Amino acid sequence: MQYENDILLRLLQGEQVERPPIWIMRQAGRILPEYREIRASLSGFKALVSNPDMASTVTIQPIDALGVDAAIIFSDILVIPEAMGLDYELIEKRGPFFHKTIENKDDVDKLVQGADAADNLSYVYEAVEMTVDKLNGRVPLIGFAGAPWTLMCYMVEGSGSKTFYKTKSFLHKYPELSHALLEKLTQTIIAYLKKKISYGLEVVQVFDSWAGVLDQKMYSEFCIPYLKRINEAITEVPVILFSKGAWFSMDDIYALNSDVIGLDWTMNPKHMREKYGNERIFQGNMDPTVLFASKEVITNKTRETIQAFGTKHIFNLGHGVYPETPLENVKHFVQEVRNFRY
Amino acid sequence: MQYENDILLRLLQGEQVERPPIWIMRQAGRILPEYREIRASLSGFKALVSNPDMASTVTIQPIDALGVDAAIIFSDILVIPEAMGLDYELIEKRGPFFHKTIENKDDVDKLVQGADAADNLSYVYEAVEMTVDKLNGRVPLIGFAGAPWTLMCYMVEGSGSKTFYKTKSFLHKYPELSHALLEKLTQTIIAYLKKKISYGLEVVQVFDSWAGVLDQKMYSEFCIPYLKRINEAITEVPVILFSKGAWFSMDDIYALNSDVIGLDWTMNPKHMREKYGNERIFQGNMDPTVLFASKEVITNKTRETIQAFGTKHIFNLGHGVYPETPLENVKHFVQEVRNFRY
Repeated sequence: MQYENDILLRLLQGEQVERPPIWIMRQAGRILPEYREIRASLSGFKALVSNPDMASTVTIQPIDALGVDAAIIFSDILVIPEAMGLDYELIEKRGPFFHKTIENKDDVDKLVQGADAADNLSYVYEAVEMTVDKLNGRVPLIGFAGAPWTLMCYMVEGSGSKTFYKTKSFLHKYPELSHALLEKLTQTIIAYLKKKISYGLEVVQVFDSWAGVLDQKMYSEFCIPYLKRINEAITEVPVILFSKGAWFSMDDIYALNSDVIGLDWTMNPKHMREKYGNERIFQGNMDPTVLFASKEVITNKTRETIQAFGTKHIFNLGHGVYPETPLENVKHFVQEVRNFRY
Repeated sequence: MQYENDILLRLLQGEQVERPPIWIMRQAGRILPEYREIRASLSGFKALVSNPDMASTVTIQPIDALGVDAAIIFSDILVIPEAMGLDYELIEKRGPFFHKTIENKDDVDKLVQGADAADNLSYVYEAVEMTVDKLNGRVPLIGFAGAPWTLMCYMVEGSGSKTFYKTKSFLHKYPELSHALLEKLTQTIIAYLKKKISYGLEVVQVFDSWAGVLDQKMYSEFCIPYLKRINEAITEVPVILFSKGAWFSMDDIYALNSDVIGLDWTMNPKHMREKYGNERIFQGNMDPTVLFASKEVITNKTRETIQAFGTKHIFNLGHGVYPETPLENVKHFVQEVRNFRY
């Protein structure tokens, strides 16, 4: 498909582009007043995620409001655990809460997996279809899934956590059962991503948000093999792997050969290029708190980041944009990237 | 002073010891039933911290209960902000909460600092004195302070946070004011540690618990200079610097030349030795969730850690022990370290 703004796809196809394409993690969200308005009209975050018309509406909002080069479908990584049989609710200011968690083999055995689980997510496919329709060829649409480890974190812990110590303990106590769960998740993620792609996604990102609570050895045993499977299974579109906090496994992640590697703000772009060369596309990685500073600081830091990464770069923040970020600063940031020329 | 068990001090004095000395972050705490009993008899955590008799009692509990090689005074890093004029309360299951936070120059100017602030902490000095008395020469006593950056995090954010985005934004928005606040904190920390040492501490540890939310450049600008000042000012006893999550600044931290560097579990001991040689004492760094696994796993991982660090090593976990850890596993872990011979 042809897009009015195809700079992201041109970069992904290996073309030399004139500036980095930009999108922002959580660009469809609370930084936008038009999002907050829709969100307030519904009973909760989950009502928005499961309403294809509303989800597609908020997905396209940042295209006009911010001028980003791609849309990312508004959804939640926890739709997969739910589709596998673990309901959750989102408690205001507390985050996700699972009434039932994974504790033993029986719990893992009961989970629906693969295409059967993916089939439970028709509201997402419908949202993708409606979004593609509403975008009408303006920019490409990105889809995403949580990585197996990150989804396992919520399914075992039952909620968010600073340490995810229950889930990490689960790995130490029940390594085989952990692998069984991660396997089921992997099959479901692949089926889900493939089905979403068939409705019109051009790129997918896998979020391993809780990578950083592990270490190199644990990540290599419980995460890398599953990321490898997902990356190899998704042949239809480019794959972005974003393992937040996994500095210790960067060699292993690099070796997976994904089209793009997402980087958090702790990774130094210059060091990454020195170590890994100039061929791989990196995505990231400005600290989102820079967007609370003056426009001058934002401009300087934006240019510094572009120059350090070189031309194989998708600009993004190193983490989702914080909801409290001044909107005019986000707009300024996007404009600075769009006005840049290599 | 002479101690019955002086293995920690012998290592710190450069002696070749027969096994790594061991203590555990949060060893005086909820893993021990005798701690929970005392804690339940008081109105809250702060009541315990500010009661020298009770604080000294819980400080020495793990010496008998676990057989660790050092005591660490039971206290809280937030006594310093309080002594500087910012009251806080600890809300059950939510953590610290400051009614007033630092927002502008006036707030920073109003803070009491240095010896004047340190003088407000007589209950801590009394607890140190009573603990030394109760220990009666069995093991040495460690004291601690939060690092300037970590204390600033709570003073600006007003509570715990996963991201400390307000405090990081504060650094970007008000770099000079941030330095003024960090300077006041540094002076207070130095005065406080020196005074505590005079009551009988043999070692001090500086905790930079939120180092990991920054990056190398920010850490080098807003943290390293103050850690350097503290490390150089404390000449009376050995200093352990523990900057959790600051993998990106390890070269800068190493260059500070502290007697000991504390490491979290993400740092690979073998890589640390390859990079920095065998002379510096490292402290750490087993993942605390290993202690939820079988005794066999604990034994193997403990020995692996000792062998990887070599003989300049204080055994500790890479983070505080989690309160839910099975006590028998903690005991087994300590015994394994104590039974080891190089």
